[in-house]
Amino acid sequence: MTTDPAASLATAQRSLGDPALRYPLWPPLTSGCPKSSTDEVAYPVEVDYAYEHVPADLFDGRPPRTGLDRWAPLLPPLAAPGLGEGGTPLVELGPGVFVKDESRNPTWSHKDRLNRCTVSAAVACGAPGVVVASSGNHGASAAAFAARAGLRCVVLTSTGLPQAMDTFLRAYGAVVLPVPTEARWPLTRRIAEHFGLQPVSNVTRTHTGHAFGPEGYKTIAYEIHAELGAPAAVFVPTGYGELLFGIGKGFAELHRLGVTDRVPRLFACEPAAGGPLAAALRQGLPAAHVDVGATDAYGIGCSVNGYRGVLAVRNSGGRPVLLTDEQLHAAQTELAHAGLWAELSASAGLAGLRACADEAFDGPVVCVSTSSGFKDRGVGKERSEPVSPEWTAVRGRLRAAGIGE
Amino acid sequence: MTTDPAASLATAQRSLGDPALRYPLWPPLTSGCPKSSTDEVAYPVEVDYAYEHVPADLFDGRPPRTGLDRWAPLLPPLAAPGLGEGGTPLVELGPGVFVKDESRNPTWSHKDRLNRCTVSAAVACGAPGVVVASSGNHGASAAAFAARAGLRCVVLTSTGLPQAMDTFLRAYGAVVLPVPTEARWPLTRRIAEHFGLQPVSNVTRTHTGHAFGPEGYKTIAYEIHAELGAPAAVFVPTGYGELLFGIGKGFAELHRLGVTDRVPRLFACEPAAGGPLAAALRQGLPAAHVDVGATDAYGIGCSVNGYRGVLAVRNSGGRPVLLTDEQLHAAQTELAHAGLWAELSASAGLAGLRACADEAFDGPVVCVSTSSGFKDRGVGKERSEPVSPEWTAVRGRLRAAGIGE
Repeated sequence: MTTDPAASLATAQRSLGDPALRYPLWPPLTSGCPKSSTDEVAYPVEVDYAYEHVPADLFDGRPPRTGLDRWAPLLPPLAAPGLGEGGTPLVELGPGVFVKDESRNPTWSHKDRLNRCTVSAAVACGAPGVVVASSGNHGASAAAFAARAGLRCVVLTSTGLPQAMDTFLRAYGAVVLPVPTEARWPLTRRIAEHFGLQPVSNVTRTHTGHAFGPEGYKTIAYEIHAELGAPAAVFVPTGYGELLFGIGKGFAELHRLGVTDRVPRLFACEPAAGGPLAAALRQGLPAAHVDVGATDAYGIGCSVNGYRGVLAVRNSGGRPVLLTDEQLHAAQTELAHAGLWAELSASAGLAGLRACADEAFDGPVVCVSTSSGFKDRGVGKERSEPVSPEWTAVRGRLRAAGIGE
Repeated sequence: MTTDPAASLATAQRSLGDPALRYPLWPPLTSGCPKSSTDEVAYPVEVDYAYEHVPADLFDGRPPRTGLDRWAPLLPPLAAPGLGEGGTPLVELGPGVFVKDESRNPTWSHKDRLNRCTVSAAVACGAPGVVVASSGNHGASAAAFAARAGLRCVVLTSTGLPQAMDTFLRAYGAVVLPVPTEARWPLTRRIAEHFGLQPVSNVTRTHTGHAFGPEGYKTIAYEIHAELGAPAAVFVPTGYGELLFGIGKGFAELHRLGVTDRVPRLFACEPAAGGPLAAALRQGLPAAHVDVGATDAYGIGCSVNGYRGVLAVRNSGGRPVLLTDEQLHAAQTELAHAGLWAELSASAGLAGLRACADEAFDGPVVCVSTSSGFKDRGVGKERSEPVSPEWTAVRGRLRAAGIGE
């Protein structure tokens, strides 16, 4: 469950704002690129690797389910122990349409891939713990990996957190602090500085996040490729765009290494109530701020994007897709009626595909479903009506539901 | 995602009450063995196979994560499509102690392995749907696989169902009928008969369940073996004993086929508030009835056992372990603090190991963790106290929690 950190071929951090700017691998830059960032836009950094030394057989065969360690050469050093993250199944929804079900991860979301990398950074830096601003999956995942590594975890949540998520976070021993939403980023930064905790979520005005985190998402691309080759398109639920970027980078690496001769188009699926990435792309900006209206998709309702998302969409020839809550709920129902109960935000991938009926795809398409239905606000709010155990009552209820027709 | 049902080597059903009694493979016997059962004890049946035709390479290498289809020769015909069930990771908790994390399944519990088989039986029989009595994981899993196969699903729940589980069941389109607990078994039988639905849970006085279901659990043994060989012991959360039986049968098959030269001891981990299997073993009976006292482990608090559990413990040289809620909660906390948030009932495997400190094991041990922490009654009942965003308040809360010590 642990991998020799020396297995990593990571060499440096490179600015996404100006790829000519390189920084040493350590310490991880948790506030983006210090040189190219401006007062208006913070540019993230990414990790660079000694690609010429990637083992020739790294992408051979179908990978066993052994956690991200399988891909250690192309990840930051995995100094923290794993939890069997990744290796999630592709479920065929219909001809040529696949769902990558990330709810099969240790904390039942894609975030486990990211946090294996961020908590590894904390361990490698000798930090006593991590701090994260999150209302959900990110926080719980960071808490789980921190607990597994014997580190503390502080989670700054918003006061509107679904109650089940609060239990979820505390189960792992995290210290949960509900604070007003606008206070989360500055407090994350201050707690990190004061207590020496590694910040594993964003602390800058436009989104940068942790330098190492999105590297973990590359493994989704590796896994999809191992089963399908490069699909024609991947539809990705999009908040700050780290998942989108990681999947795009993974395919770009496969292309660079000669493992595939094409990369999929990436479709960034955002709630129409917000949609900062769509706004940034429309305006030709690296990042945009938007007001977020009412949406039940709390996991991806963001007021600002990160430049990573812009790069991922542009470099893959993809595009943004804005989705109403009605479209998201319809996709959630479609998934559940195929046996996959996804969080509403997680259903954005399939909703995006359904919204692109005008697109023609030259090959299979993959919709990423990021998380489990247990994490939505509405869970447990309604109760099925009890029925009298008398046969006529039971039979009547079943007939009314269309059983036996 | 589907496998040619002809890939199955299943040949017949055989009575566990009298192994000389064999029945044709079809129709599946959903009320146990009609000949050996008495008014007091219903004996289950199991599936027999043409073991002499098992492909020589079936157990070679580490299996890819492709659902139960990987093991089709030793399963009943898989006529229903899968959801990428099984292939769950073994997480090392400490030296020689592994957790088989079944919360990574499509509906986040082990029951998905069983219901791939039961819903396949319904499809093969041409039934329009399935009916199941369940307060949780079994029902949701049946609902998911039925939805995937285009069948209807009726779930008879108890009125004390945790509210999140109600949402969970209905998400898949199941018809959910809360009824008094004692009415569930007779109603399951009557609904099955009247509407032609396949019953996928028990309908007899002592537990028999569906003939094909426990076959799915054998794959847990195959997977453990592929990673560890045969461990010294497996600790299994035990309700009616189907999981225990399936794991035992899987290892017995590996032994019979010459793939392993030993089988693990099976420890049946039951809540002390009930414990019908422990009672049956103590009294030398095939099945026992007990009163179930108060326990939070609602998933495994059973008033009667099935004969399968007796056979599994006896044939493996194992034993029952009775666990208090205090022991279960301690194991749940231990798992969560290692990054695995399990349902309380699911924590019984680790609790069982911890309760057996006097046992010496000649090799690794595996604790099966059957399900996710999201499914417990207490989830969402408590809220973290909001904190003022002022630095002194935040710093104080963190210091009080031991951060920065």
